[in-house]
Amino acid sequence: MGVAGLGAASRQILPQIARIPELELTAGADIRPAALEEFQAKYRGKAYDSVQALCESGAIDAVWIATPNVFHAEHTVIAAQCGKHVIVEKPMAVTLAEADQMIAAAERNGVKLVQGHSKIYSPAIQKIREVVLSGRLGRVIQIDTWNSNDWLQRPRLESELDTRIGGGVCFRQGPHQADIVRYLGGGQVKSVRAKTGRADKNFATEGDYTAFLEFEDGTPATMVFNAYGYFNIAELT
Amino acid sequence: MGVAGLGAASRQILPQIARIPELELTAGADIRPAALEEFQAKYRGKAYDSVQALCESGAIDAVWIATPNVFHAEHTVIAAQCGKHVIVEKPMAVTLAEADQMIAAAERNGVKLVQGHSKIYSPAIQKIREVVLSGRLGRVIQIDTWNSNDWLQRPRLESELDTRIGGGVCFRQGPHQADIVRYLGGGQVKSVRAKTGRADKNFATEGDYTAFLEFEDGTPATMVFNAYGYFNIAELT
Repeated sequence: MGVAGLGAASRQILPQIARIPELELTAGADIRPAALEEFQAKYRGKAYDSVQALCESGAIDAVWIATPNVFHAEHTVIAAQCGKHVIVEKPMAVTLAEADQMIAAAERNGVKLVQGHSKIYSPAIQKIREVVLSGRLGRVIQIDTWNSNDWLQRPRLESELDTRIGGGVCFRQGPHQADIVRYLGGGQVKSVRAKTGRADKNFATEGDYTAFLEFEDGTPATMVFNAYGYFNIAELT
Repeated sequence: MGVAGLGAASRQILPQIARIPELELTAGADIRPAALEEFQAKYRGKAYDSVQALCESGAIDAVWIATPNVFHAEHTVIAAQCGKHVIVEKPMAVTLAEADQMIAAAERNGVKLVQGHSKIYSPAIQKIREVVLSGRLGRVIQIDTWNSNDWLQRPRLESELDTRIGGGVCFRQGPHQADIVRYLGGGQVKSVRAKTGRADKNFATEGDYTAFLEFEDGTPATMVFNAYGYFNIAELT
């Protein structure tokens, strides 16, 4: 397996990949020479200065795409065209059109395309899923989640605060919440109605959203996120 | 003031009306002779065996309509046609067409028509409203409320469990939650998307709902109700 993008996301992912016996971490790609040097020293994989070169190298069967959000689509399509399976960090893409292109490229080239979600593996979510699957409380009637924290007030990269390149809470935090709701609902979402907000004038990006979802089986779900730091919802748990 | 319907709702309202100095409780109406006798003995008002007779009697300027839900529209229209102001218990009506008829009758006859909501007067809601109006936390960004209790499992009248005549949580509890959200939002609701559920096979009426509202100023709100008794949300407070 290779890793495209050796920045913040990879720093969390690489140590995990390295310790899975079934996986061999063989290569990495980045445009920053220092990042490649560090990668080679630490993981002894081959280093490439572009995703194209990584995917054409023959050094990998699959690639973990952890480049900046705005490049997820382009790099996924490159990997698929090279016949590489793809795990892509959230958000999948910055536009719906890009997401469609990624799916089409994966299907056309017969490779698997997986979203690299992480929050559903937390013990609490796993336990809820276990109860859901057991059926001992019956079927799921409603799924509702609130997340309120200081995401927008903490130090952030510029790219995290620019909606056009996949910044703001909708792109950065929304995928986590959506994945949890979807995982617990156990199906595909049929419809979404939502409202996003930019209530902090210091940031030209979304700091809140409110969404109403309906699953294919009719189960309703709501997702609420507020990142202005007025209240940390963890205080309730 | 007169009170139409001397049943369960009135039992909570009458003592309150009787102790307001600006109000004189002069008459009541019910179809049950025993209820009328009790009313006369306790409040010394005149007793009428129909809302029509009450409204035509000249004994009142306004009427509090606390008859069964399915009669709210009919009785409101009668009162309006007799030139009486109306306070009507929740739910306003059982169909949207009925609600429209009530509003038209009030406007045509130049009387005031008020919904007799009660929950917004609780100290907690009053305090939240006070904070909202003060503006010291800025404008309202999102309004979200969950209510989970055992409403459907507690002993209930048959009329409370028949949706056609205004039973189920949508008619019985929804108005409370909607009124609170509206009171805190401070405006009119522009759009609603919602899903109701009948997840307890023992009852042929709604036991849950999930709603997404948007106020005229764009503020989103969600309302979630679950009355199956799996969890009492008061445990969180």
